[in-house]
Order: sequence, then C-alpha cells, then structure tokens
Amino acid sequence: MELQDRKEIGENIAYLIKAGEVATVKNIIIDTHPADLADIIRDLDEDDRAFLFDLFDPQTASDVLTELDEVSREQIVEKLGTERISEIVDEMDSDDAADFVAELPDDVAKKVLSQIDVRDRIEVEKLLGHHEETAGGIMGMEFVAVYDDEIVDDAIREIRQKSQEVENVYNVYAIDRDRHLTGVISLKKLILSHPKSLIKDIMFKDVISVTTDMDQEQVANVVRKYDLVSMPVVDKQNRLVGRITIDDIVDVLQEEATEDLQRMAGISEEEILQEMSAFRISRFRLPWLTVAFMGEIVAALVLSRFAHTFQNLMAITWFVPAIMAMGGNSGIQASTIVVRSLALAEGGTTDWMGRVARELKVGLLNGTLIGLYIFAFTRILSVVPNLKIDVSIEFGLVISLAMLLVIIMAALVGSVMPIILSKLKFDPAIATGPFITTSNDVFGLLIYLLLATSYLKWFRH
Amino acid sequence: MELQDRKEIGENIAYLIKAGEVATVKNIIIDTHPADLADIIRDLDEDDRAFLFDLFDPQTASDVLTELDEVSREQIVEKLGTERISEIVDEMDSDDAADFVAELPDDVAKKVLSQIDVRDRIEVEKLLGHHEETAGGIMGMEFVAVYDDEIVDDAIREIRQKSQEVENVYNVYAIDRDRHLTGVISLKKLILSHPKSLIKDIMFKDVISVTTDMDQEQVANVVRKYDLVSMPVVDKQNRLVGRITIDDIVDVLQEEATEDLQRMAGISEEEILQEMSAFRISRFRLPWLTVAFMGEIVAALVLSRFAHTFQNLMAITWFVPAIMAMGGNSGIQASTIVVRSLALAEGGTTDWMGRVARELKVGLLNGTLIGLYIFAFTRILSVVPNLKIDVSIEFGLVISLAMLLVIIMAALVGSVMPIILSKLKFDPAIATGPFITTSNDVFGLLIYLLLATSYLKWFRH
Repeated sequence: MELQDRKEIGENIAYLIKAGEVATVKNIIIDTHPADLADIIRDLDEDDRAFLFDLFDPQTASDVLTELDEVSREQIVEKLGTERISEIVDEMDSDDAADFVAELPDDVAKKVLSQIDVRDRIEVEKLLGHHEETAGGIMGMEFVAVYDDEIVDDAIREIRQKSQEVENVYNVYAIDRDRHLTGVISLKKLILSHPKSLIKDIMFKDVISVTTDMDQEQVANVVRKYDLVSMPVVDKQNRLVGRITIDDIVDVLQEEATEDLQRMAGISEEEILQEMSAFRISRFRLPWLTVAFMGEIVAALVLSRFAHTFQNLMAITWFVPAIMAMGGNSGIQASTIVVRSLALAEGGTTDWMGRVARELKVGLLNGTLIGLYIFAFTRILSVVPNLKIDVSIEFGLVISLAMLLVIIMAALVGSVMPIILSKLKFDPAIATGPFITTSNDVFGLLIYLLLATSYLKWFRH
Repeated sequence: MELQDRKEIGENIAYLIKAGEVATVKNIIIDTHPADLADIIRDLDEDDRAFLFDLFDPQTASDVLTELDEVSREQIVEKLGTERISEIVDEMDSDDAADFVAELPDDVAKKVLSQIDVRDRIEVEKLLGHHEETAGGIMGMEFVAVYDDEIVDDAIREIRQKSQEVENVYNVYAIDRDRHLTGVISLKKLILSHPKSLIKDIMFKDVISVTTDMDQEQVANVVRKYDLVSMPVVDKQNRLVGRITIDDIVDVLQEEATEDLQRMAGISEEEILQEMSAFRISRFRLPWLTVAFMGEIVAALVLSRFAHTFQNLMAITWFVPAIMAMGGNSGIQASTIVVRSLALAEGGTTDWMGRVARELKVGLLNGTLIGLYIFAFTRILSVVPNLKIDVSIEFGLVISLAMLLVIIMAALVGSVMPIILSKLKFDPAIATGPFITTSNDVFGLLIYLLLATSYLKWFRH
C-alpha cells in the first residue's frame, strides 16, 4: 500500500469510527494487511485505538500486535483482559508469543500462560528459557519435519496436517527416529520427486544448522553468507528443536547495524522505533554526554597548565579547534571501520595487526596532507591585512607537525581501542563514541601544547 | 563450516596444491560450499588462486565469483580467457550475470556477451538497462509464472521445466494472457491443492509487487515490512518482468546501514569489504577531512577576532574544548536519530516538526544539566589549590549559559540539516559528518565568545 493511501485510510477510519460506521470499518480491516493496520492504529488517538482493536479477530489482533512497536503494544495490551490476551497469544507463532509474554507484567503473564492452549504453553515456556539474543531466543517451534525413512507422500501429509500452524513452509526437515537432524528437502524438490521416493534418498544431507546458544548476530552472518531463507536450530545433541526464518534474520541485521550506529553516537535504538518522551530520550543520551564531559574537564585542566604558553603566543589558541577536530575526525574514521569489520567478522579473527598498520599508514598520509594544508593556510592568513592572525614560519611548522602527530595518534587510538575492547568482551561500538573522541581531544591538545611550549622555549627565548 | 575448519582446509589446500595432489583437492572442492570456497580462495596467494580456480567446474566457478568481493573477483577474472568467462556467465543467475558483466572492461564484456547463450544475453542486456540501485537493477529474470486460467498441474509442469534455471522457488506467480501480474501461489498451497484446481481459484490476489524503477532501499523496506521472501517486479503496465529474492534484500539492508554509518564518518564501504591500499583509503577519506578542515579554519578566524577577550580573561581558553565537544556530541546524537528515521521512513514523510521540537526539548534538558555540571566544576576547580583555574561565580554562570545555548543550537542544526538535505534530494547521512560537526564548532565558539565578551564589557569594565 502506498504511504498516501495508508494515511487516507487512517484518516477515514478515525472518521468512520466517530460516525459509528462499524460495518464499513470491519470491511476495511478485512481488506488491509496487518502491517498496514499496525501503522494505522499507531497514528490513532487512545480511544479510537481501543475501539478499532476490539474489532479485530484474534488472528488479526495477534498479527497487528506482533508488527507494532513495544510502546504502542504496551498501551493497547494494558487495557485488555487476560482472556482476550490469551485468545490472541493462542494465534501467535511460538517465537512471537514468547517475546510477547516476556513483555507482560509477571502476574498477567502467569494468568495468560495458564489460559492458553497447553501445547502452546509448553512451547512458550521452553522458548522463554533461552537468552533472547541467541538462536534459541529468536527461533520458532513451527516447522515441518519427517522421519528420513518415510516417503514423499508422508512429508506432504505432514505439511497438510501442520498447514494451519506453520504459515510459511520453505523446507521440510528430515530427522532420524531419535530426532537428530539428518537432512533438508526444499518444497520444490518435494513437488518434483516421485510420491513414493524415500526421503533419505532425495534429501540434501549437508544441512547447515545452528545450536540454540549461538549469538543472533552470528546466526545472521551464517544465514547471510549461505543465502538461506530458513535455518534449523538444534540442541547440543544435534536434535532438531526449532526453526529461524529469514524475516527474523532481517530484523536482527537491521537491529545490529542500527545498534552499532547508535552506540557510537550514544543514543538508544528505542528512540527511532518508538514514540519516546523528551525526558526519556534525555536520560538515554546523558551518560554518553557525561563521559565526554568529564574528558573535556581533563582537557580544560591540560590547557590551564599551559597558561604561560598561551600568554606568550596568543596565536596558539586559534588552532585549538582545528587540532581537536582533525584528531577527532580521523579517530572516528579509523574506529568506524574497525567496529564494522569486527561486527562482520563472524566472531572470528581477522588480521588485526595488518588493520592497525594500515590505519597508521593512512594517518601518516592524511596527517602529512592536512599538515601541509594548515601550514599553507597560516602563510596565507598571515599576509591578509587586518586579519590579526600573524603566525611566523617557524610556528607554522610547529602547528603543521603537531597536526601530523595528532592525526597519527588518533589513527592508533581509533583502531586499537575497539580491538582491545572486543578482546575484553566489551562492545567495541560503545568505545568509538565518547572514549575515543575525548581521549583524542586530550592527547591531541597535549601533543600540540607540548610542541608549542618547546618551540617557545628553544626558539623565542 | 566453523571458522577454524575453514582455516585448516585453506591451509591444507595450499599445501596439497604445492604437493601436486590434484585429485584430493578436487574432492575437497566437491564437498565444500561455494561461500566457503570463496573464503578459502581469498586467502590464497596469486598462483594458488589461479590453480584452484581452474579446477572449478563452470557452476562452482560462477557461485564462487558471485560470493567474492569485487577486488578479488577482478584479480581472478583478469587472467581468464573470454571463453572461460562466457562459460561461467552462462551458469550465473541473470541478476548476478548482469552485475558481473557490468564490472568487466568494455571490450571483454562485448566479447563475453557475444559468446553466451542468446537467451541469457537478452536477459543480461535488459537488466543492464536499469539503474543498479533500483528494483530493476537487483531483480533476476529467473521466476516461475503460469497463466491464471491454467491448473495446478500446469504450474507443477512449469516448475519442473524451469527447475534447472530457477534454483530457489518459493512462490509461483500468476499472470493473465497479457503477462499482467494477477496473483501469487505459495508452493505449500500448490502442494495442498487438487491437481485440477484452477490457479485463479487458489491464488492470493492481493499480491504485493514493486515497479522496476523503485529505489532498492524502498524495496527493502517493503520486503521487511510485509515479511516477504521474494517479491515480483512489474513494469509500468503491471506486466511481470522479474523477481527479487530475500538474499539480495539482505545484502541491500546490510549495504544501506553500513553506508549511512560510513557516510557519517566520511569513509567508504569498500574499505571494509575489500583489501584496499592505504593510498586508496587515504584518497577516500580526504574529502571529508578537507571539508572539516575548512570549517576549522573559519573557527580559527572566529577565535582570532576575540583576541582582546582572551587577553583579558585567560580562563576562557580552558573551556573551549568542552564547549566544542558538547555541542558536537549533542549535534551528532540528534542527527544520527534523524538520519536513521529518514532511512527507515519508507521514503515517506514523518512528523518532522514534532521530531525537531522533541530534539529541542532534549537539548534544553541535557543543556541545562551539562550547564549545571560545568558550573559546579568551575566552582570545585576554583577552590583546589595550585590548579591555576580561577573562575569567578559570574564567569562560571556565563560558561554555564553558553553551554546551554550551544547544546540547544546543536540540537537544532543536527535535526534540521538532514531534513533539509533530504528534501533537496541529497543524502542526509553525508550531512551528518563534516557539515554538522564543523558548523557546530563554529557557531558554538561564536556563541561562547560573544557571551564572554559581553560579560567582560558589562561586568568587568
């Protein structure tokens, strides 16, 4: 649906609700995709939301809730009775149901679990046992499996039996009598094979699977690498326990990429996806700013130590921003590359020494060029009349050298810090934010002022 | 395959090649996934690469080349004759073939196109006509379609006929006799329907499709929103012309998220994915640094205008880094959120006024807090003996007010600039980098120094 259409439908629905045209609203609901209904309901005011949501049958309600952001979902669910919630949970895929139940207040969750279908409850409780950012945490229990000593017709019978429960079937998994995963058959293969063929004979045996405890980012990397649409999940004994579908992987990839970006800037993922108040956003961003602030207080202390230098050569002040900014920017470039490489490296090791060496070379190259720039500019600025910037050739060279050293130092800190943090099992993206930029500010100023002071001592006195 | 295993196989292969154990190497090739072979071949030296690649049959060679990064692919292809290249292209999916041919030198591309299967050539030439970042540019011509007045058995016959050409089939598309897209049937539905059922009667009619000229990022957002695994592509007359599969969408999402991150830091995507020399990396990063540098020269000019102020109150200097850094960081936080929201907004409009208003509120909150921090610190630092930082209460208040104003200004610039740039059809991510940080430096310093000068004028003279 076009965005314009959706906006129109949304406005119409609000109007129709106010006009009491329930029958028309119901017709619109039937014709509209749950993902679009989620968008529409998000934009309605509280009363209209509750009214519209009441009109959804349990299946639509469950699809819409799954598509909604956490905050809107909470607001809607708050007003529902546990009976209605249970009815909705019964319609959810097990992975969505587990995520949903995990969000409920404890007492509501307990009641809901006691009211849903007993098989669903067992599945949800099993899934809740896994960490939410692992394969076990994102897998669903809806899959089609057959014994590998059965025939194609048995597989088709199994698909028919599970066709209500398992919405999307791309592959059928083959297991032995102890539920060990032994192979996979695509539906295409199944269609093209003789109905009496043994599964064992037509299945693909080199099936790629992951264990329940694998981190979701690694799972996503495996799916991406091998271009899969679904992935069987096994326990430590290679017994088939679940299935991850590509739409969940797409969400993970999106989440992780956005997460890196946000950690580097010290903002929270929820800010984008949800309607958060300025107060909550402020609370999320403040820690990052506070760390950076502390660093800048250190910078202030460093500067104050050089009061004598500043007094003797006012022009030193003019280039403080340039030194800070160039160091900061070079450091961010180096660290962004390293953080992204770490994320894409499948959790394995790359040639880190080579990476750092290359960043140092880049720092040397760009530092030399920017150093030459600033030298040229000090010459130009010094001859412009009335500009009050008078920098001697010698001091121009000092600034130029400081620039080179600061950029090399920033390249070193920016590339080494994420690697060290990742070895220490911290998230390297967090490092790239406040730590690298502020430490570059402090060290950069220190380099610049030490050089300037030495220059004053040796050349001017 | 575990990373460790891959490394071992890679080392073994290098060893086996040197020992002349061709038969063993061939066996390893058969047992290894092309994505793993791509990883292995990337790590080999030039001679071993060429030797191993020669052992691949055309299908494996085409899969491996598709998986490889651009630089490694170029190095391998350089040494192949056009005949071998044509043989490999013949095995590629049309979308990969088009991308691959587009990378070849013009004369080689021409020769290859004249040597491949004529049907493949027509497909590749059609695809090359689309912009590479649109639906037409990422779609493939491999799909299964049936007329909607045919029956299930006809669809199965069609799948069988195309089973070699179309590797992954998740859905069969239904078209009318003029090739207009009219519906979609999942393979599951096909399996469960009576062989004599009319396609028209069992197909899903609300099929979601995109047109060839839609931007790939928007296509990815549609696929993500509706949890699709493949997406039919139609021309302006709604005639079915291609299919986009989820693995291509995953690549697009990855690419776009990484792109944003990189544009904001002024680095290039190729840096991560390819082995680039320090010289090339330096060339990629320099424009960004140069723009930032120019901004800092302006900052130097601004500072020099306030020489008199600095001379009268040395302590002003100490807080220049804090003012710059807090403005810069707050601006990055605001702009990162807005850039990400723009990317995820399906190309439509969100409530931008609300977004900017909220950023201003956050700026007010955080600015007030950081302003209080810095006031507190100036008090503390002033009473520590031997610290040489002596800030009067009045001047502490001036710094504090400057901090508040600078952070609000940064929130404004950081949230408005990406929106304006996106309205002007520029990439907002580029803006977030040098423009926002340096303009915040310049404006921030200006605010700080103007306040400090007024303070000196009114209170101290």
